[in-house]
Amino acid sequence: MIEPLRRGSVIGILGGGQLGRMLALAAARLGFKTHVYSPAGDNPAFAVCHSHTQADFGDQSSLQAFAGACDAVTYEWENVPVDICDLIETVCPVRPGPDVLRISQDRIAEKTFISGLGIPVPDFHPAGSLSELEEAAARIGRPGVLKTRRFGYDGKGQTGIKDATVLADAWNAVGGQPAILEAFVPFDREVSVIAARGIDGTIATYDIPQNLHENGILRSSTVPALLKPRTAGRAREIASTLLESLNYVGVMTVELFVSTRGGVESLMVNEIAPRVHNSGHWTEAACHVSQFEQHIRAVAGWPLGDTRRTSDCVMENLLGDEIFACPELARLPGAVVHDYGKAQSREGRKMGHVTRLKLRK
Amino acid sequence: MIEPLRRGSVIGILGGGQLGRMLALAAARLGFKTHVYSPAGDNPAFAVCHSHTQADFGDQSSLQAFAGACDAVTYEWENVPVDICDLIETVCPVRPGPDVLRISQDRIAEKTFISGLGIPVPDFHPAGSLSELEEAAARIGRPGVLKTRRFGYDGKGQTGIKDATVLADAWNAVGGQPAILEAFVPFDREVSVIAARGIDGTIATYDIPQNLHENGILRSSTVPALLKPRTAGRAREIASTLLESLNYVGVMTVELFVSTRGGVESLMVNEIAPRVHNSGHWTEAACHVSQFEQHIRAVAGWPLGDTRRTSDCVMENLLGDEIFACPELARLPGAVVHDYGKAQSREGRKMGHVTRLKLRK
Repeated sequence: MIEPLRRGSVIGILGGGQLGRMLALAAARLGFKTHVYSPAGDNPAFAVCHSHTQADFGDQSSLQAFAGACDAVTYEWENVPVDICDLIETVCPVRPGPDVLRISQDRIAEKTFISGLGIPVPDFHPAGSLSELEEAAARIGRPGVLKTRRFGYDGKGQTGIKDATVLADAWNAVGGQPAILEAFVPFDREVSVIAARGIDGTIATYDIPQNLHENGILRSSTVPALLKPRTAGRAREIASTLLESLNYVGVMTVELFVSTRGGVESLMVNEIAPRVHNSGHWTEAACHVSQFEQHIRAVAGWPLGDTRRTSDCVMENLLGDEIFACPELARLPGAVVHDYGKAQSREGRKMGHVTRLKLRK
Repeated sequence: MIEPLRRGSVIGILGGGQLGRMLALAAARLGFKTHVYSPAGDNPAFAVCHSHTQADFGDQSSLQAFAGACDAVTYEWENVPVDICDLIETVCPVRPGPDVLRISQDRIAEKTFISGLGIPVPDFHPAGSLSELEEAAARIGRPGVLKTRRFGYDGKGQTGIKDATVLADAWNAVGGQPAILEAFVPFDREVSVIAARGIDGTIATYDIPQNLHENGILRSSTVPALLKPRTAGRAREIASTLLESLNYVGVMTVELFVSTRGGVESLMVNEIAPRVHNSGHWTEAACHVSQFEQHIRAVAGWPLGDTRRTSDCVMENLLGDEIFACPELARLPGAVVHDYGKAQSREGRKMGHVTRLKLRK
């Protein structure tokens, strides 16, 4: 049996953005110190952690010193280079383990892995070159979505393939990088499962939010999602299967498409994120143990927490200058606001969020 | 109208203990930076604030620099020397204003002020010397409680006067300092009102906890207190009267004795604390806006938040080595644990707390 981290232990976090910040705040409440490692930039997590290192991910000596200063390390970002985690693992545990990064950083590896577990994913085909894209389009048919294999987030690095799309244009649109062509899924809803697995193998899932995207960026998450109980149960099962097959420790997010035909709902996994997720921010306001605390509990070897909700809610992202509305939003009954403390507001940048709770009395 | 502090503003906090720490965590969530000022010692707030100054309260140049770095200043401790706050106020606003400190730091001034508003307090008489104590005992009668006028907390600096007590012994027991003799109140329950007043004069109060003390230290707070609705309403009115008469900004705590005679409940104010309070820690787990966020909202000139509760609960302090039970307590359904991150555990020292929520489903 692995002992839980002692109080006062240092949890390292790779990445200094808002997710790292919220993880650091949660860790503080449990009596842990945090050490955030992040390259130069606006790192809002630095303001709330016990110590920080500002250095590139390629800086071996800084990484060594960081690993030596931590009792366990986690990350806020699935595109942390895997070799960094391999290096850190020689010094202290990395949770979740680096294996899941190898899978989630490569859309082809990810979809191959998931479908290999018997979990439905959209049809896909590699598109490593324009000629392979042509072959892929012939097999998959149209419409489809061309995505770079690596480093996509918030809708970046992807383009639609419609009937009239010239494939060479699409190939250029994603930068001529190794890509994947996925069949377009005519989904009715997008939902996600925020799930956690503890060191002892226990699994806990939160109620499922329904997510609305605009321009590839999450706009809002509404809890609970409009799902039949059987479908919600199936979504949780999918998340559990993924967690177990990866021997995962921490919070994982599974994004799913829901399609309805003849009154029957079916699910397909869109992608997985080996981390806390924007669509789980409402847990901070509506649950006793947030996704951030849940992740820290798992990383620290603590038992997982109670995922029950106190109320229905809607979480809305505050993008760009919307953040300046915080004091007014805070006036609304049942509104819980969160400002990430980022120095610069830019159009479309995630600056904070507000969760509106539907209070019972 | 006073404008709210802009996002990214710096809120100064005098005192680096657990209350300062929880205030800093709440401020971070609202997008504020915090600067904690505290003398040398185990200052758990330092680990989660944006910047800190470790210096004595008598260090004028450090105080000047601190005031110059802040956009507003508050405190976690009612015994902050008033002249410090007067000094800081020449540079930036101090909220709550220093006037309340003048009152709450002196038990005689406090009781005189409160009773002057028509609010019941225990009979009291100054005991500035042994001979004045003898006069006080003759007037008040026995049993009574002898308390130092200043710097009492967690039951320190007080002693009971029973029928057999030799007054000279009692006088020595409180160190021969200026004191106050209060009539002993044969109360049935101790409760407290955590109340807040915003810059716009709005008042919000939380549901009332019932508090249990052991050896002068708060052991647990249970919400809601066993009170008739009329009594609870009267307690809230008392808190509102105090807030308004002080033109107060921030969270204030009013500790009350409840006595029942012939089925009729009556209230007396025991003391007030111009700050967030241990008996309000449950708000962090059971309310959407905790007492800490509420205080920061007021200090920042934001609207006050919704004080409604999601569930009944019991908050228990974790004293000394009880803190090591956190991972096990965290396993219980509906348990929300908080470890203050203090380096050293000592017998009776407040190290953390756990709130047990009575969940509805």
